[in-house]
Amino acid sequence: MQTYRLAIIGFGNVGQGFTQILRDEGADLAQQSGVRFQIVAVSDLLKGSVHDPKGIDPAALLDSIAATTRLDRVTAPDRAWNALETIERSRADIVIELSYTDLKTGEPAITHLRRALELGRHVVTTNKGPIALKYPELKALAEKHGVEIGAEGTVMSGTPSLRLAQELLSAARIRKIQGIVNGTTNYILAQMEAGVPYADALQDAQVKGYAEADPTGDVEGFDAAGKVVIMANLLMGQALTLADVDRQGITQLTPADMAEAKAAGERWKLIGRVETIGEQLTASVKPTRLPSSHPLASVSGATNAITFSTDLLGDVTLVGPGAGRIETGYAIVGDLLAIHRKRKK
Amino acid sequence: MQTYRLAIIGFGNVGQGFTQILRDEGADLAQQSGVRFQIVAVSDLLKGSVHDPKGIDPAALLDSIAATTRLDRVTAPDRAWNALETIERSRADIVIELSYTDLKTGEPAITHLRRALELGRHVVTTNKGPIALKYPELKALAEKHGVEIGAEGTVMSGTPSLRLAQELLSAARIRKIQGIVNGTTNYILAQMEAGVPYADALQDAQVKGYAEADPTGDVEGFDAAGKVVIMANLLMGQALTLADVDRQGITQLTPADMAEAKAAGERWKLIGRVETIGEQLTASVKPTRLPSSHPLASVSGATNAITFSTDLLGDVTLVGPGAGRIETGYAIVGDLLAIHRKRKK
Repeated sequence: MQTYRLAIIGFGNVGQGFTQILRDEGADLAQQSGVRFQIVAVSDLLKGSVHDPKGIDPAALLDSIAATTRLDRVTAPDRAWNALETIERSRADIVIELSYTDLKTGEPAITHLRRALELGRHVVTTNKGPIALKYPELKALAEKHGVEIGAEGTVMSGTPSLRLAQELLSAARIRKIQGIVNGTTNYILAQMEAGVPYADALQDAQVKGYAEADPTGDVEGFDAAGKVVIMANLLMGQALTLADVDRQGITQLTPADMAEAKAAGERWKLIGRVETIGEQLTASVKPTRLPSSHPLASVSGATNAITFSTDLLGDVTLVGPGAGRIETGYAIVGDLLAIHRKRKK
Repeated sequence: MQTYRLAIIGFGNVGQGFTQILRDEGADLAQQSGVRFQIVAVSDLLKGSVHDPKGIDPAALLDSIAATTRLDRVTAPDRAWNALETIERSRADIVIELSYTDLKTGEPAITHLRRALELGRHVVTTNKGPIALKYPELKALAEKHGVEIGAEGTVMSGTPSLRLAQELLSAARIRKIQGIVNGTTNYILAQMEAGVPYADALQDAQVKGYAEADPTGDVEGFDAAGKVVIMANLLMGQALTLADVDRQGITQLTPADMAEAKAAGERWKLIGRVETIGEQLTASVKPTRLPSSHPLASVSGATNAITFSTDLLGDVTLVGPGAGRIETGYAIVGDLLAIHRKRKK
């Protein structure tokens, strides 16, 4: 059985969700796919670090966090490793980068991914920052060193949207991608359809934990724009940047707009879109009125959905979770299995 | 560049759609995927046969059919080959079985597939008969001879539903599959929702070419049941048969039933379902009332959709075409590329 050693950078919700899957499903995965994933190092800015070349029990990691919110309890490492030391010294086959998302600078994730790729490690990340900002550079670096980049979790969490497009739809030629890729705004819009004004709907989303204290990233469409750029780069082979996205958020919409759409048999959705027109790729994030028969119109709450318009198959729509600790953890599992499939050739 | 030689058995709509894709997209496919597919033989019960080990131009095949409805015009073969001779003598790497569907006996397709597998040929088919009736036996034969079976087109035409489930969702553990997998009944139900009685809606579907003269296979749920059995066998690892499916068609539904559902905010859909409960797999095809918020409720017309309920990701729904000459032809392309991916290892 092939074993891959993993180093995890950042041990928040996603890292813990992934570790929980390894704890609960690792044996099944090994049986089903003939592959074993072994955590050899974890480093988190706040929670400390731990490393052991013989492998670390996923249950011990989760127990340590539950008991003390820190990782150090698992073993007594000779010395704590920071993120870069973990990447450089852990001898992991695959580095899983899960540090915090910064869509402006992409750091520190870009530095982590660069270093890992330079050292010939495969990388997996659910972090939109580096993929939205530096994918072409990172991809070139990965190719130079003969390793893979897995980024399934950057769009629609663990719902395999990127891989569906890359592996199963690309031969049908994707011309246009339209999606609801931000659950927070989709939740707020549903509230507004029920007559709640924007400010109250936002507050409700904040109370429920769907929206952050500073909601700008979601409600002004930055998060969706990041995902649009990722889809343009990974699926349409274009080097777009965030500045290329014609972006508009949902803050100007009113319950009256909602009512007007409803009367016309339509619904407002925040739609991220990439489209090839001639040789030109255009990208946007905009509130859009969709007829209620459109497959994206009925997608509600935190669920996400993407419609791929193709030459040979027409429209194919994927609907699934867009967030969640285990769901996003599953994105990592999917990326790891894809690396294994490519490597066993 | 790797070249695969193809023998096509049956040259109706799907075979011609596939050949059209090869004619129009073959060069792109070669560039994109580094693989060339070359037709070396075609045999059709009514249209004659043609073979040439040096390869047959897809355009010539289509032109011959357009001009004379027969294949013989392409070259003057020494002697016409029937289906079995084509399988045995063409030296094809892959046999594409597209003869007519018979859900009762599975013949002649079962005989064709058995022979091809025994000779160590990969097989690709869009024919539900043999896959619904004999998949476990055919799969064992394929494994014995170290070759692959591609059957993506048996469910949702070219929409990659089987491969999404097998390759991208299986590690999330699929517990339940529910789908609208028959476009004809979905079209009739939509008409009935608009107040048209069943008999008139059926007649309309027949006039439009969606339903056959004998509509039993569609309206009594046999076609959907065949697809349910295929999903159970390919995706849930169970050897179900058609007799195991609790099957009920749409012929008993009335416009009054439709109106009643609508008043309750629901819609009638013919739902095929496979579900693991404990160690037991249950399978059914039944008219089902779905709340209009359900992702399957808004699927209209000839569009198909399947919801996969998984342990780790919750519900993931795929919506796409369920029929069409090019769409089903694309299913074959997908299967061929999958064989290539597995083989180049």
